Amino acid sequence: MAKDNKKLVEAITSMDVDFAQWYTDVVKKAELIDYSAVKGCMIIRPAGYAIWENIQKELDRRFKETGVENVYMPLFIPESLLEKEKDHVEGFAPEVAWVTYGGLNPLPERLCVRPTSETLFCDFYKNIIHSYRDLPKVYNQWCSVVRWEKETRPFLRSREFLWQEGHTAHATAEEAEQRTIQMLNLYADFCEEVLAMPVIRGRKTEKEKFAGAEATYTIEALMHDGKALQSGTSHNFGDGFAKAFGVQYTDKDNKLQYVHQTSWGMTTRLIGAIIMVHGDDSGLVLPPRIAPVQAMVIPIQQYKDGVMDAAKSVCERLGKVCRAKLDDSDKSPGWKFSEQEMRGIPVRIELGPKDIEAGKCVVVRRDTREKIEVALEDLEQKIPEILETIQKEMFERAKAHRDAHIWDAHNYEELKDIAANKPGFIRGMWCEDQACEDKIKEELAVTSRCIPFHDQEQISGTCVCCGRPAHKLVYWGKAY
Amino acid sequence: MAKDNKKLVEAITSMDVDFAQWYTDVVKKAELIDYSAVKGCMIIRPAGYAIWENIQKELDRRFKETGVENVYMPLFIPESLLEKEKDHVEGFAPEVAWVTYGGLNPLPERLCVRPTSETLFCDFYKNIIHSYRDLPKVYNQWCSVVRWEKETRPFLRSREFLWQEGHTAHATAEEAEQRTIQMLNLYADFCEEVLAMPVIRGRKTEKEKFAGAEATYTIEALMHDGKALQSGTSHNFGDGFAKAFGVQYTDKDNKLQYVHQTSWGMTTRLIGAIIMVHGDDSGLVLPPRIAPVQAMVIPIQQYKDGVMDAAKSVCERLGKVCRAKLDDSDKSPGWKFSEQEMRGIPVRIELGPKDIEAGKCVVVRRDTREKIEVALEDLEQKIPEILETIQKEMFERAKAHRDAHIWDAHNYEELKDIAANKPGFIRGMWCEDQACEDKIKEELAVTSRCIPFHDQEQISGTCVCCGRPAHKLVYWGKAY
Repeated sequence: MAKDNKKLVEAITSMDVDFAQWYTDVVKKAELIDYSAVKGCMIIRPAGYAIWENIQKELDRRFKETGVENVYMPLFIPESLLEKEKDHVEGFAPEVAWVTYGGLNPLPERLCVRPTSETLFCDFYKNIIHSYRDLPKVYNQWCSVVRWEKETRPFLRSREFLWQEGHTAHATAEEAEQRTIQMLNLYADFCEEVLAMPVIRGRKTEKEKFAGAEATYTIEALMHDGKALQSGTSHNFGDGFAKAFGVQYTDKDNKLQYVHQTSWGMTTRLIGAIIMVHGDDSGLVLPPRIAPVQAMVIPIQQYKDGVMDAAKSVCERLGKVCRAKLDDSDKSPGWKFSEQEMRGIPVRIELGPKDIEAGKCVVVRRDTREKIEVALEDLEQKIPEILETIQKEMFERAKAHRDAHIWDAHNYEELKDIAANKPGFIRGMWCEDQACEDKIKEELAVTSRCIPFHDQEQISGTCVCCGRPAHKLVYWGKAY
Repeated sequence: MAKDNKKLVEAITSMDVDFAQWYTDVVKKAELIDYSAVKGCMIIRPAGYAIWENIQKELDRRFKETGVENVYMPLFIPESLLEKEKDHVEGFAPEVAWVTYGGLNPLPERLCVRPTSETLFCDFYKNIIHSYRDLPKVYNQWCSVVRWEKETRPFLRSREFLWQEGHTAHATAEEAEQRTIQMLNLYADFCEEVLAMPVIRGRKTEKEKFAGAEATYTIEALMHDGKALQSGTSHNFGDGFAKAFGVQYTDKDNKLQYVHQTSWGMTTRLIGAIIMVHGDDSGLVLPPRIAPVQAMVIPIQQYKDGVMDAAKSVCERLGKVCRAKLDDSDKSPGWKFSEQEMRGIPVRIELGPKDIEAGKCVVVRRDTREKIEVALEDLEQKIPEILETIQKEMFERAKAHRDAHIWDAHNYEELKDIAANKPGFIRGMWCEDQACEDKIKEELAVTSRCIPFHDQEQISGTCVCCGRPAHKLVYWGKAY
């Protein structure tokens, strides 16, 4: 058993030794992804895709409760359409993939593979929105997008990734702003309630906002290594795109008005976040609410009479109250334990001849390794309780870790010191001059993550960079 | 009311006058699709996408019951990978879209946008399959694919379409054949049970089989106009791809063996099939099991006291037993009726002041226009019953129509006459010489649809084309 264990675990670098390597090891060994024949594009394997399916299911349910309708837009955008909004094309043109041939013939106009679909939605909305009666439009699509990144990492930054992109059109600026914030809050609640991942909600600076947006809102999470991860964004476009594309409607007074638009997205990057917030040196640790398998039943001495039958019966009973699976392969129990741990399955249920005789089993929590004896007759009641406890405690631990890694910087010296020595978020006042943001980024490799909504404390009266008067608290950090 | 009705309906061409135009009118007026800025690519609107979501949900559930696991493979295939299997590349290369630039830089190797993913799966399987313990692999993905078609029609043939593609690898030829047939039967059952669409199961001829396959099985449905629609296919590749890509495993005797592979797919084309099998001159008619909204509650004299409240209460109660919706817009009832009919919602529930007083409502079936008085207290029981009746009768009607359009041809004269004058399937014996198939296609625009599994009757002893001895019964037809 010890030998088995070693074999699988040996392959993982410790996160304290090399966090980046640890991450790469986990995504491979937990069989979440494989590399593909196309550089920078990944294969999402069953264990990884099942997590995405659970994310989709839960997010989609929450979307639909707010009136979102799903659509599917084309994969391609003609170059002339991409170019209609100036800031937008400047932001995206350098990193798109271009289709130039259809079959054996060169295309009359290049098509880019969508990096995001604002331009397509605008062109569509222009055709279907005529009157105030046609508003609002609250559409979303689940699809893949392509951005030709130079440096790639599985889930975090790949040339193709899966996401959802919501695109809405409203009669008024107020309604658009409300929807932008509503979706950001939906994202934040989802991350905290389902992924057990605390996030900071705030607004991006002008420098960091989305190409073409009036305002970009973001949720920022802290990874185990102290780096920030932008986990979801929601953009208010005002009527900028509407003017560029001519998306107008007739209001109740029969006057032509431009619509106000928003867009918002979350991606497979969330799987990277789950790994880096909750994982440990034995591999993945999945929050129960998102885990494809929540309880793995592992028989001990499975060739003894009655053991496999008892394990099957336990798995069947559990299947009614959670997502349970039986490992009935011919591997050793120790090997099965290591695999369950590597894959981050929230609990395993060990069941051997002596347990069966005593009418109990041993439940081992993946997150704390705590062993809990549970009477077999109590299984249906206890396992869901244990899963809920794990979910709650995983959030609390992640929050405690995050809160223990937020540092205040009152001047440039402090900022420099923290940036060099203390991984985590840095709170620092900002004068709102982009020059300071640029300098901090260039000299300290630290970017403004957001201007938070909820703790706009005046920790000092002066900019952390230039010392001039400052009224905005900003969260700074190194980021993925 | 009559005037309203006319307005919406006027816009549709009658199916007897011009079936192709009727089809185009329905997909547009029922708001299933819109045309996009990219020629040949469509926008799937909420009413269309919701049908696809229901297809996905039900198919995916059935897949998973047979052990299918979902994955996601890259959108792009390097040219050198596409070229590894000779027949396959010959079949697909002329109709793929090529990416030649990533950002501002030309790519070192062209990438095609996947037209299908056999080659990617082979390359993946080569990396993850080593021993007999790694088999079988039964993977599937839901995605979009691109084929640069010259002539396009919404859902039926578009340059991009949505589908699922299953790709499996097995230790033995027998197991691969079993899986191929299993999935074809799953498709057929789905079409008949859920889409109320009868299908003929059979094998494609050598000429019509998939590029690179040893055998292609198909389900063929008959559209209202008498043309056939290939509705799902399942391919057995034998070990051809495995040999081209070197996908091998070590068997129990420690010998290297090639795997045996299959693939199978269904597409958004099914939405076209639903339209053309069930639709009528008032628009779409959706089978209840696939309808996003099954019952539309329409208040009559909705501004009278109590009417809207009663309608809301009816809708809420129905929401517990079916997918119900209330049309509380300020349109007239007649307009609402026309919309409900155009969108193919299986039943509408008319509820006015007199109905409320009498404790009843009027249920109108979309398929037969039959009006059924239902006591309000019986709603939860009656509506699901009516929906089941509709589902059953829609299948029976489609089957009766299909069976009334199957003609037997015993020689070339008969074949020619039927092809020219009688829309439908033609049963005719075939000598298995491709020259006959070619001649029939060229002269009569009729193709072999399949060699059916289930009614291999010897309707004559000689080939319908050349008169030589023949033992195979073939279904022939004009096809989409």
